[in-house]
Amino acid sequence: MKTILDIVKERDNFPYHDCNRPSDYTQYTDNLWHFYLPDDPRPHGYIPHFVIETMPWTSEFYLDLSSNPKRLQLLADTPTAANAAIARVLQTAREKNLFKCLKGWRNEGYRILGARSDIKIERAGAGLFGIITVGAHMTVFTRSRTTRQIQIWVPTRSMSTTTSPGMLDSSVAGGVPMGVEPFECLVKEAREEASLPEELTRRCAKAVGCVTEFSVKGDAQLEPSVKYVYDMEVDENIELRPGDSEVEGFRLMTVEEVIKRVLEGMYKPMSAMVIIDFFVRHGILTIQNERDYVEIVARTHRFLPFPTSSE
Amino acid sequence: MKTILDIVKERDNFPYHDCNRPSDYTQYTDNLWHFYLPDDPRPHGYIPHFVIETMPWTSEFYLDLSSNPKRLQLLADTPTAANAAIARVLQTAREKNLFKCLKGWRNEGYRILGARSDIKIERAGAGLFGIITVGAHMTVFTRSRTTRQIQIWVPTRSMSTTTSPGMLDSSVAGGVPMGVEPFECLVKEAREEASLPEELTRRCAKAVGCVTEFSVKGDAQLEPSVKYVYDMEVDENIELRPGDSEVEGFRLMTVEEVIKRVLEGMYKPMSAMVIIDFFVRHGILTIQNERDYVEIVARTHRFLPFPTSSE
Repeated sequence: MKTILDIVKERDNFPYHDCNRPSDYTQYTDNLWHFYLPDDPRPHGYIPHFVIETMPWTSEFYLDLSSNPKRLQLLADTPTAANAAIARVLQTAREKNLFKCLKGWRNEGYRILGARSDIKIERAGAGLFGIITVGAHMTVFTRSRTTRQIQIWVPTRSMSTTTSPGMLDSSVAGGVPMGVEPFECLVKEAREEASLPEELTRRCAKAVGCVTEFSVKGDAQLEPSVKYVYDMEVDENIELRPGDSEVEGFRLMTVEEVIKRVLEGMYKPMSAMVIIDFFVRHGILTIQNERDYVEIVARTHRFLPFPTSSE
Repeated sequence: MKTILDIVKERDNFPYHDCNRPSDYTQYTDNLWHFYLPDDPRPHGYIPHFVIETMPWTSEFYLDLSSNPKRLQLLADTPTAANAAIARVLQTAREKNLFKCLKGWRNEGYRILGARSDIKIERAGAGLFGIITVGAHMTVFTRSRTTRQIQIWVPTRSMSTTTSPGMLDSSVAGGVPMGVEPFECLVKEAREEASLPEELTRRCAKAVGCVTEFSVKGDAQLEPSVKYVYDMEVDENIELRPGDSEVEGFRLMTVEEVIKRVLEGMYKPMSAMVIIDFFVRHGILTIQNERDYVEIVARTHRFLPFPTSSE
């Protein structure tokens, strides 16, 4: 039987710098290239050597093998040129079928979170550049009128979605596209995915923090991620219903059932992190019942090695 | 004018491993010794070279200069012997007046959080061994019946306390001594420091997570810390009153006033971290109004390089 910490570690699996075994960490990170934007001395992503070798780089990308760590420098005079260069290289890689993840092409860009101008990367390719992905997640819950016990609205993802088909998810969740405020993204997703009236979300959704982790997916994709997290307590008469094809259906689950599903690996890994944070904030997981409490809290709020603001 | 992130960074000031400038980090950490307990391969603290040179080590401590990183190994066959060895060396250092921090001797031990047996270190000397200190903090707040605005009960620490005299603090706060459950410690502190009835705390205090950071104090003390955090919403008719000599008095403050005091540096630094986490969890600081939101959340929940459970 897995523990909550096992589930957290499966998702937050980029190694931590451990002074005990610095060589293990170094051995892994030494093979990563650091991705730099024009006129910005801060790296915005790590890229595995395999991706560097495989990607059809153009002359807008300078591969500096002599630096330590090795650098991939995007050369472009304007944000427009930078965006065109990134789009071109990913489009070519997609046409040549070089990376499996590009089959999930969405025509939707992630803005590089800490960049000083609006540079975007197609969502399906974000992991190849190792940039921080940004999402908005909300847990919608109700309390029994008699027992005051929390029950959570849990969607099952449609079997036809490209990512995590059939898995359980946050009540409302979505990537935040470039140019959209996280809260506005949430309001829209709540309406589209869960049929929640815009007015209700605006009035009742509460910002409660963010969940951050650093995930390694296979040998090509690195995914540091930030999820802005919201809670919304609703009356028992409110019902969440699928509003688009991404969700198969919703069920109201007890806390015990949700924990069981998390431990069984039924949750989309990123969303498991969000519900675990919910359980901590609502006193369901505590230092009295969860041995790994402190590590769980730290790993669901990981300090990421890339800038998260433009300063 | 300082920012919230400035305040957080003043407290969470142990360097992060930055792949950009690994040498800065290494230069600092290379001078730290790692503290090992008997029969346990995991380090439980970092110790600056200055402390290693100054402390009157006995034969129960083996200083291994040849290892990398350098190790201070406690040699003792039993927990009792380990405790006696630590107590002896600290007591001698205190008598010889070798470290200023030992003037605050409390005759109260911190249990080493992740140790596999009950090993304790006198509170005033915890920073010299760089072990994780453990506390329980509660924010007691009320909501105006008319506006629903949050107001927070804020104590001013007595001018006669040894640490942070005259500063503002969490509504209830205390170090967790060895052998006491964090929640039981909180109930006791709430009664003693804030005159809160035990029954009220047991019924209304809610566990909401923990705040962790790594603080460097001068050239001798390292203080990684874990604070178990609780919220308690009370009616407007409940009043907090000093119950012992540690608190000068309590005032109910608006959120705006608390933020102003935090930015002015009037808060005990450790407790500023707790109230900042409160502001995040209650949607007072959000991604819409706080540019450094993601970094603030990560730094108030830092992953510590020492074990936090016995496994």
